[in-house]
Amino acid sequence: MNNILDGKKVSLELKEKLKQEIINIKDKLTLVDISVGFDEATKVYVKQKEKMALSLGYNFLNLHFDQILETELMQEIKKLNQDPTITGIIIQLPLPDYLNKDKIINTIDPQKDVDGLTNANMINLLNKETSLVPCTPKGIMTLLNYYKIDLIGKRVVIVGRSHLVGLPLFHLLLNQNATVTLCHSKTKDLKEYTKDADLLIVTVGKKDLITIDMVKEGSIIVDVGINRFDEKLYGDVNKDCLKKARLMTPVPGGVGPMTVISLMENVKDAYYLQKK
Amino acid sequence: MNNILDGKKVSLELKEKLKQEIINIKDKLTLVDISVGFDEATKVYVKQKEKMALSLGYNFLNLHFDQILETELMQEIKKLNQDPTITGIIIQLPLPDYLNKDKIINTIDPQKDVDGLTNANMINLLNKETSLVPCTPKGIMTLLNYYKIDLIGKRVVIVGRSHLVGLPLFHLLLNQNATVTLCHSKTKDLKEYTKDADLLIVTVGKKDLITIDMVKEGSIIVDVGINRFDEKLYGDVNKDCLKKARLMTPVPGGVGPMTVISLMENVKDAYYLQKK
Repeated sequence: MNNILDGKKVSLELKEKLKQEIINIKDKLTLVDISVGFDEATKVYVKQKEKMALSLGYNFLNLHFDQILETELMQEIKKLNQDPTITGIIIQLPLPDYLNKDKIINTIDPQKDVDGLTNANMINLLNKETSLVPCTPKGIMTLLNYYKIDLIGKRVVIVGRSHLVGLPLFHLLLNQNATVTLCHSKTKDLKEYTKDADLLIVTVGKKDLITIDMVKEGSIIVDVGINRFDEKLYGDVNKDCLKKARLMTPVPGGVGPMTVISLMENVKDAYYLQKK
Repeated sequence: MNNILDGKKVSLELKEKLKQEIINIKDKLTLVDISVGFDEATKVYVKQKEKMALSLGYNFLNLHFDQILETELMQEIKKLNQDPTITGIIIQLPLPDYLNKDKIINTIDPQKDVDGLTNANMINLLNKETSLVPCTPKGIMTLLNYYKIDLIGKRVVIVGRSHLVGLPLFHLLLNQNATVTLCHSKTKDLKEYTKDADLLIVTVGKKDLITIDMVKEGSIIVDVGINRFDEKLYGDVNKDCLKKARLMTPVPGGVGPMTVISLMENVKDAYYLQKK
């Protein structure tokens, strides 16, 4: 298949580029990953990030609490904000229900917010100002840019409006002058939107949500879904759509690797922001 | 014509309702309007707001500076923030170029930000939290609600992506579960989007941008444009579109009066936010 948007390949190239760039940084970059409680998926994700960070020569600190008071956690974050040896801070989601997620995330210094989830960074994104952008949307934009996909005036349809992916993507694509429609669970006749999309981005988490009759001939499809079924991984877009698409991301090997490398790029960008 | 969205009529009804509500407030509501420099249009707008405010029994303070240093202006705003007799603060736009608009607007206490332009209120809007919403988008939502227009799953097209109107409207309509497309100056084949819209909202400032061939039979059209031509006012939507629309706002007498009454409602809402 040569019509795939090869996130795996591109992320490896970006990793090499990042390695070269880091050589010129005299300080050691340090990423802190904070997790609270017990979530099996979280453990896997933290391990992935740790492995990638270490392979780039970053320090990786895994700060885990079985349980912690909100005020104490905020105190910990403030200490990390003030510590000049800490470059980036991630709060692993989901947090246990007894913690106020928004309050905790917004305690992070926006210049250390390498997940790009603070209000300050969201506002920067809306205002087209320099910002640490959430990793999945950033990774998708990098991938589209790598394949030189022209976005100006293009008809883009996003399915899914999460604050982690759909919403920031909407604003990133709008900032690039695409004409964007945001679809979601309450959209009627989803196909009426997807079938006309030059670029379709699906971020719902539902296997086979998008079938071949729903996509446009020659379109570009980005599949953000990761659905586990019978020990295998599937996206939200049925693989048959590859027959109609000009370019499409595979699952796995599409958006996933782009997300991890984007986090690592954000750590480097955070370093420069703090040095300014 | 009985297919008009009668902003004038609705705003008068809302004014009566607001009057009744204010009777129960023992404090006098005070709106401060800050303007800098000389802008003829600004003078007209300030007068309109003053007239409406006084007719509702609000105090209205017109704080005008021929010129002022940024730091001094911010100091003035901070004083007003701390003054418990001040309910709402407006910064009249445009400000002279030598002043940093964003910095000045974000000096306003979000609970006194009756134009809904601070970052804090934009983030509240994104997060569907209680917020002071910009007056024109708020007025449009109120008008649609008055006419009991069902938005869930509807195909909505907004033309124009300003931070004052288009962008906040996008999020307000999304929060109401509409499926929204945001078009703008870089959109190719605008008609391809407008002709399918169940609800079309146009906020560009260009007379006759939308003609009858571009709209859907039985659609709802909201015209935010105000264009002066040969001593008369025109919207962005050609009047012929009334023949196809199920409902449409006139210009003048549509969105305009809804904007002013929405500001007055925001002053009342700001009072309650501060009393909480």
